[in-house]
Amino acid sequence: MTITRNSIVHEGPGGLFESMVVTDSAASAPRPGVLLFPNVLGTKEADFAYAEKVAALGYAVLVADVYGQGKRTTRADPDAARYMAELNADRALLRDRLLASHALLKGLDAVDGARTATIGFCFGGKCVLDLARAGADIAGGVSFHGVYDAPPFPNAAIRAKLLICHGWDDPIAPPEATVALAQELTAAGCDWQLHAYGRTGHAFTDESVNMPDKGLAYNADADRRSFRAMVGFLEEALGH
Amino acid sequence: MTITRNSIVHEGPGGLFESMVVTDSAASAPRPGVLLFPNVLGTKEADFAYAEKVAALGYAVLVADVYGQGKRTTRADPDAARYMAELNADRALLRDRLLASHALLKGLDAVDGARTATIGFCFGGKCVLDLARAGADIAGGVSFHGVYDAPPFPNAAIRAKLLICHGWDDPIAPPEATVALAQELTAAGCDWQLHAYGRTGHAFTDESVNMPDKGLAYNADADRRSFRAMVGFLEEALGH
Repeated sequence: MTITRNSIVHEGPGGLFESMVVTDSAASAPRPGVLLFPNVLGTKEADFAYAEKVAALGYAVLVADVYGQGKRTTRADPDAARYMAELNADRALLRDRLLASHALLKGLDAVDGARTATIGFCFGGKCVLDLARAGADIAGGVSFHGVYDAPPFPNAAIRAKLLICHGWDDPIAPPEATVALAQELTAAGCDWQLHAYGRTGHAFTDESVNMPDKGLAYNADADRRSFRAMVGFLEEALGH
Repeated sequence: MTITRNSIVHEGPGGLFESMVVTDSAASAPRPGVLLFPNVLGTKEADFAYAEKVAALGYAVLVADVYGQGKRTTRADPDAARYMAELNADRALLRDRLLASHALLKGLDAVDGARTATIGFCFGGKCVLDLARAGADIAGGVSFHGVYDAPPFPNAAIRAKLLICHGWDDPIAPPEATVALAQELTAAGCDWQLHAYGRTGHAFTDESVNMPDKGLAYNADADRRSFRAMVGFLEEALGH
């Protein structure tokens, strides 16, 4: 196995984007594809490293840029959420970028376009949900500490199975938001699951975050459990 | 592997009980023990069959009778819930019977008494929770479509990790009951997880139940997913 990273610049709704393909370049045939949506900061080393773990499971991964080439922030940035805020303010544009990312994944040489799924973290969890809400033909989606508010327009029919991995103490998604998401997905006829982790806040997969007083912190148990759940879920969704 | 069933009659709080030990009689050493609490009807063939699947994973299983010898009902019984109702009306007696069942499990020759966990279905899910609430030294507990109302007395410190496998549309445990349980377990400092399955009602592990109009029905997806989750959970809790 030879996991490699290849940066690709591609056109999309509103400009140029720079995403990363992470896959086993020694694989002899196309593999099921996984679209990975980053958190609020945009694509970065932590996403590429997570993508390598997913690629090692036998998938071709596209770490999708939905902000635009060069548009990245860090936790130290005083306005770290500015690119996310732009897309939160225009959910139709977000939807179009998500669909374009999915089309890009499906067209990659390394990918069996008939078998795709998506995963995402924080804002990327919202991306997973919004791609499913847009009716994309993805077999499955996994949201890790996502954001649950629905777009201000009706959903298409949801075709993806969904797994919501959730820290119960996440201040961004209190119980009423979680219950509302459950009701929305049920009404949409979706095959959904919620894995909620007690005494766990937002960002539980992110080793760089340690602000428990704000409800944001890495949690090794929830990270390990949600990774394991994702492995089983992708196997089921992608028949891999 | 030679999975065998052995019925045992034992004294307990309030009389005689008849439980079933299910384990690999060819095993050369004691194994981690799993206490299985049946649903409203009491011990029956379906529990013994499930116990055999758990025993095949490498555990010694005790299907615990908490009603008393001969006290069993069937779905056809006009008062199928009568023995459950007695214990729901006396949660302290229920607690004492649960603790006695756990002591019985720990003392079995086939069991490594230092490594025990518990699983249960419907009323048996309540038994799992109440045993944990009683402060029993079980490493883990899995509730399948359980009943979440707390006893009318304070909990002991919860030592068990808990996994709550839950049908979101379960009429016995609507969202407010589920949220209340999450709050209770969080306040207790417990390491808990909730796996909620969308478009799934009560009794999702029970192939004999098909009353979707009442919110009670077998669900093959939730049955398979919750079994898989239990396997991973028991591995983590029991170091097996």
